[in-house]
Amino acid sequence: MAPSGPNHQHTVTSFDDELRKLNNTISRMGGLAETQLTQALKALSQRDSDLASRVVSQDAQIDQHDQEVQNLVVRLLALRQPMADDLRLIVGALKVSADLERIGDYAANVAKRTMVINQIPPVKAAGPIPLMGRLVQELIKDVLDAYVERDEDKALDVWRRDEEVDEMHTSLTREFITYMMEDPRNITSCTHLMFIIKNIERIGDHATNIAETVHFTVSGRPISGQRPKGDAGSAPDLGNETA
Amino acid sequence: MAPSGPNHQHTVTSFDDELRKLNNTISRMGGLAETQLTQALKALSQRDSDLASRVVSQDAQIDQHDQEVQNLVVRLLALRQPMADDLRLIVGALKVSADLERIGDYAANVAKRTMVINQIPPVKAAGPIPLMGRLVQELIKDVLDAYVERDEDKALDVWRRDEEVDEMHTSLTREFITYMMEDPRNITSCTHLMFIIKNIERIGDHATNIAETVHFTVSGRPISGQRPKGDAGSAPDLGNETA
Repeated sequence: MAPSGPNHQHTVTSFDDELRKLNNTISRMGGLAETQLTQALKALSQRDSDLASRVVSQDAQIDQHDQEVQNLVVRLLALRQPMADDLRLIVGALKVSADLERIGDYAANVAKRTMVINQIPPVKAAGPIPLMGRLVQELIKDVLDAYVERDEDKALDVWRRDEEVDEMHTSLTREFITYMMEDPRNITSCTHLMFIIKNIERIGDHATNIAETVHFTVSGRPISGQRPKGDAGSAPDLGNETA
Repeated sequence: MAPSGPNHQHTVTSFDDELRKLNNTISRMGGLAETQLTQALKALSQRDSDLASRVVSQDAQIDQHDQEVQNLVVRLLALRQPMADDLRLIVGALKVSADLERIGDYAANVAKRTMVINQIPPVKAAGPIPLMGRLVQELIKDVLDAYVERDEDKALDVWRRDEEVDEMHTSLTREFITYMMEDPRNITSCTHLMFIIKNIERIGDHATNIAETVHFTVSGRPISGQRPKGDAGSAPDLGNETA
């Protein structure tokens, strides 16, 4: 069924080669997303606007990878007729790519807001953000490992740990509101910081999405049970759009 | 190539029937997303927590439709070997479904925050939100029409009009910051309102995504040129994660 023959433009690679290429592209994209988040958090904590600016401009690379994944998927689907497991893998790759692309967008937004915050005096409320950032960095790292290793247990572990991020997000939001109430001069900074931690929290959600995709791709079963949520309260953070 | 015969569970429908089913599911899903946004905005402007609560619980319906679309797509791809145009249509449906699912999430989040805001005294800053909401409702309505009618010009028009939403978002955010600075008692409400208009702005972005998908599906060409952006300034709204 595979197209072949001399009238074909390029060497026809095997299905496995194409699948490998798809996975490699996802891996590279995951590495880029991880780096973007790391650098955005570094730019924030070190008030480094040059680094932030690089993060913003590097986002286009992740978008290009996402486009490449889409092209690869369409080609794989058009040229072959993958069944069951392979099809799950291919559709999974498409979803993971979309999540990584969003993670890149959120990292770039953290960097953009960092550039704005750096123009005004720092507020001490920003102190605990790096800790929250580290938690999410670990989620991203571990879920990418789970993807590469096709490890459903590791995926499940990431899925569970996102709750901690949500809780930290809730508590930080409360803190920012308190700072704003104490001194109106904190309002502009704290508004940006609230959107920054919202972005970080959303990155955690996308890590959770990837964990769900990995689990489904590997096991053929969705993760059972309600997603644990650390932000069920009525604090102004109440920001989970994925409920 | 289509599987057939008496040992098949159900009647094997034609490829066109399956495609039609896919499109119908997307249309129904679009209608649901539109209704969810309308009701969330109504709940906000009329301070109607019962309605808001219904919006939150109805979000599951949209999620179910998204799942159904994914299943339909996987079945279409597995059973048939669609080429070029059809494949673009199918992959497009998957993307539109993901966008509609997100729109539903954002509408539900507007409703959730509305329930919280309704427990505290109203702030007059909320005044212009319905206007912004109406702009986005029109984008959603028009992009769904563009999808059903396969109208690339209408899609392009939606894509262009999102800029107006972004501008309104920027100006409203500035207003909320001013209100917070004037009176710390406004801080909690205004924080929720800032996230609410951010959600509405994001819904506009997803309408724009759908416009891009419709354009590409119909014409085979991406929309050329930079996406117009009304929030390029350095105001604290600077919230576009899709840069």
